[in-house]
Amino acid sequence: MENKPIQLVYSKKYTTLTRNELIQAVKSQMSLKRFQHVLGVEQSAIQLAEKYNVSIEAVSIAALTHDYAKERSDKEMQDLIYREQFDLELLDYGSNIWHGLLGAFLVKQELGIADLDILNAIKHHTIGAEKMSLLEQVIYVADYIEPGRVFPGVEYARKLAAEDLQAAVQYETKQTLQHLIENNRKIYPKTIATYNKWVANP
Amino acid sequence: MENKPIQLVYSKKYTTLTRNELIQAVKSQMSLKRFQHVLGVEQSAIQLAEKYNVSIEAVSIAALTHDYAKERSDKEMQDLIYREQFDLELLDYGSNIWHGLLGAFLVKQELGIADLDILNAIKHHTIGAEKMSLLEQVIYVADYIEPGRVFPGVEYARKLAAEDLQAAVQYETKQTLQHLIENNRKIYPKTIATYNKWVANP
Repeated sequence: MENKPIQLVYSKKYTTLTRNELIQAVKSQMSLKRFQHVLGVEQSAIQLAEKYNVSIEAVSIAALTHDYAKERSDKEMQDLIYREQFDLELLDYGSNIWHGLLGAFLVKQELGIADLDILNAIKHHTIGAEKMSLLEQVIYVADYIEPGRVFPGVEYARKLAAEDLQAAVQYETKQTLQHLIENNRKIYPKTIATYNKWVANP
Repeated sequence: MENKPIQLVYSKKYTTLTRNELIQAVKSQMSLKRFQHVLGVEQSAIQLAEKYNVSIEAVSIAALTHDYAKERSDKEMQDLIYREQFDLELLDYGSNIWHGLLGAFLVKQELGIADLDILNAIKHHTIGAEKMSLLEQVIYVADYIEPGRVFPGVEYARKLAAEDLQAAVQYETKQTLQHLIENNRKIYPKTIATYNKWVANP
């Protein structure tokens, strides 16, 4: 799937890097396949940002950096959990759970991006959170529906996202949880807090 | 569905009541429909106890008392949560979650049953626990498969229970969780701890 070229000049409000410099920094951290995914998330996130009136620039930066830490070694992530005093329960999980929570930390430390809303969008893009700003919701949903995603229900998720962002968050949260259980996969407890708030008690 | 008459003389090891006295005490606490369910659980639990070599007497007592508190008022249960310093997070849930955890307390206080294994079987019969004794597993499973239960999959659960108790615990845990999510029902976090241990990490 081809991504539309995105013309976007950063204001320096969130990062001293240009968009091209940020893209290079991100690209150096991952496989080409994941990089294509990241560009897809940016494209979808910008479309959602236009629709739901969120800063295009903040959304672009959060999208480009959301998987920044996904290919770090388990060893590096485990060391980081100890050193930076993250919840030690995280050690029972893996990269899927770590890369958002720890990624926000690494994006701040290594790329100098300090905007809390952007960092929370990175932090929560996989497991969600009981409270999510519009920016966080946009990244959470864009990661699920970007053009490269192919799974049963993705077209329905795209339709929902175009009509009602909260409904898309609910759908994604519920489907993700059901998919984990169908496959006997371990569930990180915060995922249930997200579900209880967004799906069971919206 | 008719229950086989059960001939069982208690030894006084777990309770000073006879089985008939315990049955009357339990019956006074609930609707006839729930009482029939309780007798069904006892019947299934005794069959499982014979198969898996668990004390028939302990199983009978745990089965008869497992829903002892299910028809207490919300007000009484909420007061009990405060007074006895149960986890206040319980207040976000309802009788479905309360009646096991608080039921064990009330069975001890009001019926004088103090055996820890029996009390844990009452406590965990709905939400399970990361560690469950054979008695706890028997009650957890019997509650799911007793002759009065009618739902898709119950025959498969009965077949599993007759062959492999752990597999029946896994199946019940997974199905219960999926059923909650399909119906957008709130999930008590300890349910996930049970799932993570028994299904995802057996």
